[in-house]
Amino acid sequence: MGPTTPQLAHARVEDEVQPFGFDEATSSLKVLDQRLLPGSVHYTTLTDSDGVAEAIVSMKVRGAPAIGLVAAYGLAMLAARETSDRQVFAGVMGIAAKALIATRPTAVNLSRSVMHMVQEAMSVADREPQARAAHLLMAAKRLHADDLAANRRLGTFGARFLTGNRRLLTHCHTGALACGGWGTAIGILRTLGGEGRLAHVYANETRPYLQGARLTAWELQTLGLPVTLLTDAMGPALMASGDIDGVVVGADRISPRGDVANKIGTYALAIAARYHNLPFIVAASTATMDHAWGPETRIVIEERSSDEAALIRGERLAPEGVAYRHPAFDITPASLVTAIITENGVWHPHA
Amino acid sequence: MGPTTPQLAHARVEDEVQPFGFDEATSSLKVLDQRLLPGSVHYTTLTDSDGVAEAIVSMKVRGAPAIGLVAAYGLAMLAARETSDRQVFAGVMGIAAKALIATRPTAVNLSRSVMHMVQEAMSVADREPQARAAHLLMAAKRLHADDLAANRRLGTFGARFLTGNRRLLTHCHTGALACGGWGTAIGILRTLGGEGRLAHVYANETRPYLQGARLTAWELQTLGLPVTLLTDAMGPALMASGDIDGVVVGADRISPRGDVANKIGTYALAIAARYHNLPFIVAASTATMDHAWGPETRIVIEERSSDEAALIRGERLAPEGVAYRHPAFDITPASLVTAIITENGVWHPHA
Repeated sequence: MGPTTPQLAHARVEDEVQPFGFDEATSSLKVLDQRLLPGSVHYTTLTDSDGVAEAIVSMKVRGAPAIGLVAAYGLAMLAARETSDRQVFAGVMGIAAKALIATRPTAVNLSRSVMHMVQEAMSVADREPQARAAHLLMAAKRLHADDLAANRRLGTFGARFLTGNRRLLTHCHTGALACGGWGTAIGILRTLGGEGRLAHVYANETRPYLQGARLTAWELQTLGLPVTLLTDAMGPALMASGDIDGVVVGADRISPRGDVANKIGTYALAIAARYHNLPFIVAASTATMDHAWGPETRIVIEERSSDEAALIRGERLAPEGVAYRHPAFDITPASLVTAIITENGVWHPHA
Repeated sequence: MGPTTPQLAHARVEDEVQPFGFDEATSSLKVLDQRLLPGSVHYTTLTDSDGVAEAIVSMKVRGAPAIGLVAAYGLAMLAARETSDRQVFAGVMGIAAKALIATRPTAVNLSRSVMHMVQEAMSVADREPQARAAHLLMAAKRLHADDLAANRRLGTFGARFLTGNRRLLTHCHTGALACGGWGTAIGILRTLGGEGRLAHVYANETRPYLQGARLTAWELQTLGLPVTLLTDAMGPALMASGDIDGVVVGADRISPRGDVANKIGTYALAIAARYHNLPFIVAASTATMDHAWGPETRIVIEERSSDEAALIRGERLAPEGVAYRHPAFDITPASLVTAIITENGVWHPHA
């Protein structure tokens, strides 16, 4: 299985992997229901901010950049229905913003994107309802377009950093579905594939939620890129046998020092990459940077339910009465990070 | 959840977790079908060597010491039915031995136990069929009793090595079900629990086959010991947050230098334990030592089917057409092993 040609990979991607899109005619947001992948490609229609919050909580849409963007569209849709005066408008937007931010506490893009929309809303609160709505829809679209453009620049920087032909290990899902399109870590893989330099992708299945098995495998297969799945603790053995040239992952939040909060299991890979002297690359837009994350900050790690780990498609794997821990994220210290690739270039936290 | 009293833990275990037992009345072996756990406790009856080989291949019985012992019983049952002369008897035993060894290539106990039984068979080949059969049944029972006694001594050595109250992480399943009873790594946890010093067990679910979620969780719960499940790449994050005091695993094969072949994912834990300066303890009977494993030896790592990873209870997790790698084992170099606990004491590979 060789990588596809640039034209083919790019063309197919634009056509086939659309995570969500705003429909002007109906003023609604169509969102690909990621829970049904890879079995079924189904778009669900969201018409307001509450629906967006529910879609995030129920994991119909997931991925740090993607949830930030659908939340922005959620506030734009709310503004389109809100015809009350300045004060009520501001209150309604504030309540909805708070509810959206509360859906997932670890990803910084979400609160950043929501706070941006709230600022935009405040800046036009005195205008006519229709003008407010138009302004906020434009603001959401701008965030979306900026994210997509940033991902493409990030892919180019990442592919330039990773010289030669590469066999890369990735974790969780960081593709078009997790973003406004294209992807972050997977975006780099796509750019490498487009240049004919992607020798192979090893994708961790990423328990408990199996984003790798369900989404990364599906997206790379759809794009015609060569992918093999691993269970989450196989990677180090493949590093030892010389089958892996590096690790590329995304991020949910990055500190000013280069510490990285990302999907549970990322830290294990970073330790193993260091042990094998392999590059450990983090790909994320600058929207993922949390400038308030100081050395003493205690980042909230979302603890999800035991059953989300213990049940797969409704089947219980473990005995009744034995619980799983389920921290959704872990933190990789900057000292283990070789490079952070953003839309602005390559950052070496140690340099 | 505190650990149970010694009496309770020990008493319950003897009663409730019997991996297999020879039934004199029917000359058959009752084997707990591990594939049906934790949902159902069902014993299947095996009457000959072919049935034993099938039970090993189909994973009804698994765990390096356990498969060695049931293979020995398989050869004893074959001898009980074989009334032919010396030469035919020797040939039949040899063919059956070869078939048994071929079922699982990585565990050294299996070939060791089978070769021991072949030697015993050769030593009595000239005797009457009934005497041969009685001798071989006695030999299998002796292996079984020795394994059980060795496990108990191992547990005592391990518990003595691990001072204080301990929160320990384990991988795969190394309990009574995987042995002749009691267990190796889990045997140490049981001994610690009996002494009131087992603060908590974190058990990796152990993908792809989920031995931890299905068997370790069930066995520890049955014994009244405190257990929480983790997905396989969570452990390092819990090490970083100070929730884990050490790692205790079993082994399928150990080199004279102290390199350890064990369930895939073990190596990842060893690297993480070293990074966090935590003890990484291997518990195994000396039957697991492979004196022929030299520095240049290439250990055969059994590669199992992609579908065994891609399907859980018949449900496909990943898209059709995307394969999993499925090495069943990995190798942890002696340099990462703090101590190897056997029935003879504590071995520090570096000392």
